[in-house]
Amino acid sequence: MNVFERRTRACQDALAAADADALICFPAENMYYLSGFHAEPMERHLFFILAREGDPIFIAPELYEGQIRDASWVEDVRTWADGDDPRKLVENVLIDLDIVAGDLLVDDQLWARFTQDLRRAAPGATFGLASTVLAPLRMRKDAAELDAMRHAGQIADTVSEQVRELGDDALGMTEAELARHIENLCIDAGGDALSFDVIVGSGPNGAKPHHRHGDRKIESGDPVVLDFGVFAAHYPSDQTRTVVFAGEPPEGFEAAFSAVKAAQEAAVEAVEPGVTAASIDRVARDIITEAGYGEQFIHRTGHGVGLNVHEDPYIVSGNETELEPGMVFSVEPGVYLDGEFGIRIEDLVVVTEDGHERLNHSPREF
Amino acid sequence: MNVFERRTRACQDALAAADADALICFPAENMYYLSGFHAEPMERHLFFILAREGDPIFIAPELYEGQIRDASWVEDVRTWADGDDPRKLVENVLIDLDIVAGDLLVDDQLWARFTQDLRRAAPGATFGLASTVLAPLRMRKDAAELDAMRHAGQIADTVSEQVRELGDDALGMTEAELARHIENLCIDAGGDALSFDVIVGSGPNGAKPHHRHGDRKIESGDPVVLDFGVFAAHYPSDQTRTVVFAGEPPEGFEAAFSAVKAAQEAAVEAVEPGVTAASIDRVARDIITEAGYGEQFIHRTGHGVGLNVHEDPYIVSGNETELEPGMVFSVEPGVYLDGEFGIRIEDLVVVTEDGHERLNHSPREF
Repeated sequence: MNVFERRTRACQDALAAADADALICFPAENMYYLSGFHAEPMERHLFFILAREGDPIFIAPELYEGQIRDASWVEDVRTWADGDDPRKLVENVLIDLDIVAGDLLVDDQLWARFTQDLRRAAPGATFGLASTVLAPLRMRKDAAELDAMRHAGQIADTVSEQVRELGDDALGMTEAELARHIENLCIDAGGDALSFDVIVGSGPNGAKPHHRHGDRKIESGDPVVLDFGVFAAHYPSDQTRTVVFAGEPPEGFEAAFSAVKAAQEAAVEAVEPGVTAASIDRVARDIITEAGYGEQFIHRTGHGVGLNVHEDPYIVSGNETELEPGMVFSVEPGVYLDGEFGIRIEDLVVVTEDGHERLNHSPREF
Repeated sequence: MNVFERRTRACQDALAAADADALICFPAENMYYLSGFHAEPMERHLFFILAREGDPIFIAPELYEGQIRDASWVEDVRTWADGDDPRKLVENVLIDLDIVAGDLLVDDQLWARFTQDLRRAAPGATFGLASTVLAPLRMRKDAAELDAMRHAGQIADTVSEQVRELGDDALGMTEAELARHIENLCIDAGGDALSFDVIVGSGPNGAKPHHRHGDRKIESGDPVVLDFGVFAAHYPSDQTRTVVFAGEPPEGFEAAFSAVKAAQEAAVEAVEPGVTAASIDRVARDIITEAGYGEQFIHRTGHGVGLNVHEDPYIVSGNETELEPGMVFSVEPGVYLDGEFGIRIEDLVVVTEDGHERLNHSPREF
């Protein structure tokens, strides 16, 4: 039994425990997690349907059949051709599985147009979310998943050190040029793809936490927020460093930087089984608040990372999820001074049996 | 009134005509089309809500507020902070707008988890799809949109010619190496990003229409399917050429290539206002079928292109949509001989007042 089938059988146990009748995934990470077949969300009807018992069924556009059979252990692949109405096939499969009046858990990211088709095909069904059964399974990574994430983390570390070595050479580069340089380094270092569009936030742009990169040229003394990661074997890394390539940082920078660095260090140190996600957020937030920057730490402390770059568990106040071995998440406190600069330091952390393991080891100094 | 507000007002007219009460978009192309603010789908609650009358409202995570205000004409931005429950805010806005029992049209790509939250916040509402009102508007591109798409098309043309000039130098490159080379050329030529992961399907891999790129090395005589495009000012290009870089193509290739080329040419020539999308598919399919490859043309002839690389109108049998000036779509017939090679030729075409305009002009020969 391969890893994908093993996960599918565990998912069926979870469906039974949740008293749900079936799970319906579309092309996104849940589909890969259970079937081994990966595709981006698409406008064509492509579903993986798993009833509580028996084997899963793919409903797929004919032109994806070969790729699904190559990638997946699933044998029952039912296809439709462009020009057919796929909704007929969906209806027939739901009838075959006797779930038209069942409790159906659909992919949390399922597009509304597909949800609408499913509601029409199964008018007596109730609809819940796949994460009910899948989030607890996906949160705890197995050894192979952790190996992939360690490897992705090493690549980010390597690139982080290479970028830092630019020193003076970074001055005068635009954020977009530096972002592209980082992308190329990431692929050269063995990444399959970028985890997300590289963030290069220089000077005041660093104060916008989700600024990507623009035409601003990096100047001497600029704090520059560098946030990037790569996918390796389907799993991503995600790392942030705040670097001053050359010159003297602006007034107030060093104090704020020390607060963020201390907060990140303390929050990582607090990670162990049994403590809550919210408590990790609190450790970081208390230190930054105490240092006088509480109002400028405007986001949660972190997010789970796995097949999705953002997934459970979220490290945020109110999340009373208790940490368990195998969970992986970011610890990334930040301080954002509007119009001046931003600071963020981020590493991925794994919960281990007796504490934690960092997945990033590149220098954290500015 | 800027272009985004003008579109929003047209959308309100369409809501009234459809007797719907409000439109709810999340971070994807519809949100950009109406607001000017672009973001990728995300796990945080971020909505653009437009009732039939009055001004639209953004519900947004606090840390996106600055970017929304920078990018959008919308003034009413209501924020929530990490740690708050955003569902309360959603509920309050729906109550303010008096639409908790309305006919709500939600983004076709809205994630199921958000649809579920909206259903809870508006238990008396009925739910339809935003495309009901937006697809007819978005299908007809305005002058600025067409300019962006012409520019994106020129970049793809330039790169297409550069790649062809590799000749012998392409032999021995892996598909992945050539894909990366194409990516770099696309950005050097002025593309903001790739429209999608570049497809390099060499030899038998070309027979899998949605193969991306792999470790196979390009050999003398290989037909290689090259499918790529770039975004320029938010609008994509999408072009496919099938190239034999050096050597003699395999037996049977030239006959199949001629059929695909003739089909593509005839289908493009058939584009004019008033004919149906299905009829364009038929023109291409009849020629390929006549040549004996009907069973190997396993996909629709094309798809609309705009802010989404795949959108309405789909050029597929059964789609009786009549073509109108301003519509843009791909014409991309293909023949796939399992285990041997694939052939696809694709250009984007605009419907004009009296016929059509091609957006791609690079050579189509192999």
